[in-house]
Amino acid sequence: MKLLRYGPPGQEKPGLLDANGQIRDLSGTVPDITGAAISPEGLAKLAALDPTSLPLVGGDQRLGSPVTGLKNFVCIGLNYADHAAETGAAIPKEPIIFMKSLGALQGPNDQVEIPKNSVKTDWEVELAVIIGTRAKYVSEADAMNHVAGYAVCNDVSEREFQIERGGTWDKGKGHDTFGPLGPWLVTKDEVPDPQNLSMFCDIDGKRFQDGSTRTMIFGVAKLVSYVSHFITLHPGDVITTGTPPGVGMGQKPPVFLKAGQTMRLGIEGLGEQQQVTVAAE
Amino acid sequence: MKLLRYGPPGQEKPGLLDANGQIRDLSGTVPDITGAAISPEGLAKLAALDPTSLPLVGGDQRLGSPVTGLKNFVCIGLNYADHAAETGAAIPKEPIIFMKSLGALQGPNDQVEIPKNSVKTDWEVELAVIIGTRAKYVSEADAMNHVAGYAVCNDVSEREFQIERGGTWDKGKGHDTFGPLGPWLVTKDEVPDPQNLSMFCDIDGKRFQDGSTRTMIFGVAKLVSYVSHFITLHPGDVITTGTPPGVGMGQKPPVFLKAGQTMRLGIEGLGEQQQVTVAAE
Repeated sequence: MKLLRYGPPGQEKPGLLDANGQIRDLSGTVPDITGAAISPEGLAKLAALDPTSLPLVGGDQRLGSPVTGLKNFVCIGLNYADHAAETGAAIPKEPIIFMKSLGALQGPNDQVEIPKNSVKTDWEVELAVIIGTRAKYVSEADAMNHVAGYAVCNDVSEREFQIERGGTWDKGKGHDTFGPLGPWLVTKDEVPDPQNLSMFCDIDGKRFQDGSTRTMIFGVAKLVSYVSHFITLHPGDVITTGTPPGVGMGQKPPVFLKAGQTMRLGIEGLGEQQQVTVAAE
Repeated sequence: MKLLRYGPPGQEKPGLLDANGQIRDLSGTVPDITGAAISPEGLAKLAALDPTSLPLVGGDQRLGSPVTGLKNFVCIGLNYADHAAETGAAIPKEPIIFMKSLGALQGPNDQVEIPKNSVKTDWEVELAVIIGTRAKYVSEADAMNHVAGYAVCNDVSEREFQIERGGTWDKGKGHDTFGPLGPWLVTKDEVPDPQNLSMFCDIDGKRFQDGSTRTMIFGVAKLVSYVSHFITLHPGDVITTGTPPGVGMGQKPPVFLKAGQTMRLGIEGLGEQQQVTVAAE
């Protein structure tokens, strides 16, 4: 299934994408796409529906984040060996964890803000893992039982705030609009191998990132297990798993975003996002 | 006013502490103590009530976190010059920001878990600032207009996870139970000078922390303004503002928590917390 949320910001309704790529309204079945809706019981209930029996949603709909009501927007840093190399960082011995503000979460095609005083706003296409059942101290062998599905995430980052302003990376990761997620949550039954998905990110039509989840240092099962030893994951929580090479700070010379540019990014089987950058106010 | 939430975990009701130190039920007035309840309009509505007209809540009530439904649990690191010195760190040039998982938030007297494989679990009494109105790019002069009130916070930390396991501090700050908040939210009208509050933390009856918010490097107004330039703050959000000297890692030799110990901590005018440590399961 491809689950989504459509409608104006803050007024999204739950939906699913049918076999013809059209939105079907789920508001008669679930109040929203929250942790409860994507629990194993919730997903079984949705999977039992005949999509053609659900109201067809017409028109050009804005999409919101495909999940809401989460507690944690966890990110993994430097999780592709070749990306670590391009940033000049050592390959981590164990996963690097940082966190995005929940306020950064937004729809996949919403505008992305260039923060005031930003000179180094950058893109990062990432595979996001969405949790379906509470995970605390879960083993790697059991970890995938806690995953509901996947989505595309743009882990938008301000590199000066992240790296040069003291403290942790969180300072450069949590600006409003810095977490486009979607277009939809693809349930894990449709993603047989999350470690073999091609992914890309274009800026103004030029391909900068062209990678595959195959080159992750720590795979999805390891990450879910690992994070669960430090932070308990709840249904609906998002772990975004790091980015392949080709970010702006890795270019020679580095390239960063300005207002009025377009990012397009996607992952095989998970759909695409497109964002226009605007100056923050 | 002193606002609080009482009752079993997950079933807390809103309340306020009356002039006699007794709980009065607010559930007839507000659904819960959320950002909406502590907005300027929300607080004005509560302030207009006659507490003696509200139902008296008897019995020995558990207290929950005095606020719920937040988006950000932001922390400031090394914000007391003498604490920075005891940890061997340089005094930061600008505030250090990190984030706690929202799942860490809990009541002021709930048990605190020692994580599995933890050898360095530590305490930190802190002044928490609770936001009343959205703050994005607010000036230091305007910052206090965005504050609803204050509470005591224990920024419980696992130092090995925080410092020695790679990545950001978040890894050692977000374990379940690592964010006791309360006993109550004290509205800012009752705290004329947040930069002159004595504070303490005792472990098993021995005083380890004995400080004052007077020795903060960056004061409350500066912190609210500063954070709002990186992460938009929403009503109900918590910024916990760093700890004075006397943490376990600063002792010679260092002292860390084991299961079965008791932490008692408090801040002048804001009340006290008490937690017993237990092994995580």
